[in-house]
Amino acid sequence: GPSMLRVDAGGGFAPLALSAGRAPLLAAVKDHGMAMMALVRAHHFGALWVEIEPLASAGYCAFACTAYMPAMPPAGGAKPFYGTNPMAFGWPRPGGEPMVFDMASASMARGEVMVAAREGHAVPAGTGLDRDGQPTTDAQAIIDGGMLLPFGGYKGAGIAMMIELLAAGLTGERFSFEAAAHDNRDGGPPRGGEFLLAIDPARLGGEDWAAHSEGFFAELLAIEGTRLPGDRRRANRAQSQRTGVTIPGALHEKIRALGGRTG
Amino acid sequence: GPSMLRVDAGGGFAPLALSAGRAPLLAAVKDHGMAMMALVRAHHFGALWVEIEPLASAGYCAFACTAYMPAMPPAGGAKPFYGTNPMAFGWPRPGGEPMVFDMASASMARGEVMVAAREGHAVPAGTGLDRDGQPTTDAQAIIDGGMLLPFGGYKGAGIAMMIELLAAGLTGERFSFEAAAHDNRDGGPPRGGEFLLAIDPARLGGEDWAAHSEGFFAELLAIEGTRLPGDRRRANRAQSQRTGVTIPGALHEKIRALGGRTG
Repeated sequence: GPSMLRVDAGGGFAPLALSAGRAPLLAAVKDHGMAMMALVRAHHFGALWVEIEPLASAGYCAFACTAYMPAMPPAGGAKPFYGTNPMAFGWPRPGGEPMVFDMASASMARGEVMVAAREGHAVPAGTGLDRDGQPTTDAQAIIDGGMLLPFGGYKGAGIAMMIELLAAGLTGERFSFEAAAHDNRDGGPPRGGEFLLAIDPARLGGEDWAAHSEGFFAELLAIEGTRLPGDRRRANRAQSQRTGVTIPGALHEKIRALGGRTG
Repeated sequence: GPSMLRVDAGGGFAPLALSAGRAPLLAAVKDHGMAMMALVRAHHFGALWVEIEPLASAGYCAFACTAYMPAMPPAGGAKPFYGTNPMAFGWPRPGGEPMVFDMASASMARGEVMVAAREGHAVPAGTGLDRDGQPTTDAQAIIDGGMLLPFGGYKGAGIAMMIELLAAGLTGERFSFEAAAHDNRDGGPPRGGEFLLAIDPARLGGEDWAAHSEGFFAELLAIEGTRLPGDRRRANRAQSQRTGVTIPGALHEKIRALGGRTG
């Protein structure tokens, strides 16, 4: 089969299409040593690590990214153009949980800026610009017609641009500015694409590839104060599986109603 | 042929091996739509964009990265562990020069920090840590046994880690900490690997992929104050080709002597 796959979500939400594409993607990477999947005509919501974890658990190095509605300016500019453009990366650790990180190209999540605005806190320099395109640490000014900045200045803007070109240029789906132009303004996620890449580390990394990378992680974790990305998420998940999670009753009812179940 | 290539530099410098690997890599991406190249047993010096530009000029989306001697701590730590770990990305623009960016994972180049130290300037917060692992804006304290920080805090550290896993984990070559352990301390570049990836945007991006991405660049450049990465480098290069470059006579002599030429 081909090593480059196109999965058409048919205008539906991304998770179902991604889960349908997983088996063909795993088959392709097994055959070829590497494979790419372009998810198109999808409405994306939620986290990318969810897509990466099964690929890394299956023994593959995996990368995913997606573009979104304009929220950040390009380097040197003061108009929202890139989405907050997240990327996720996973590395398999046979015999244990894979290493998976997932991060937005924005210096801070919009939700965090909104919390800071509500509580009257300043945000760090470099978080955003106000509506006039001026740097500000006033969270409210970022919310009120301003914009978020990419993490790490022009370098993060480079990452955000790369993500647009992978998630929209390579897939043929919409760039963030196109998603905005076509958005139906119902408040839901816009139509867009996602880029996924999976590579078998056993192909070129040698038969001891797993021991080699475990040596790397061991050396990293021997440095005081360090942990692997995703460890906190995994600890929280294990805790939730033991003790359950508490949610408001009204939310529970809403979820049940949306699911159409009564039991 | 295979879509995953291994090029053995035989302990020599990287550019010759990379240039020998270019034709097989281009043939592989033409056949498969995507191809990966692992450069191993190489001593790397110089910029990555030099490798990316020919691939992007040939019509392919290209990515490269390499790890290096420990210079930056992992997130939360205060011991040099990652190299300054550069990555480069290119996008083809048929009929014109490709877009190519090339950036280190460090917030600032060591050379720039050395200039600041010599001139007595402070560097921005987030540039580095002193020898005790404390954040500092004193350039000299970063040079004197301190270390550089990744750009954008823990997010840049995530990029630096991803680069280690691609350039060493996938290729089977040395992680930065291993390069340091095996370095012969002659002052030259250590042995290491490089990861290259090339993808044909015509495969999944639709037959109008080039017009589609040109629309993206046009929209970006319509925002005041913006330019594409690499434009300044290209302008400088064009200028140099017209007017030549001025170098010290002693350097000219040294270059001629190293080249073994007298003419």
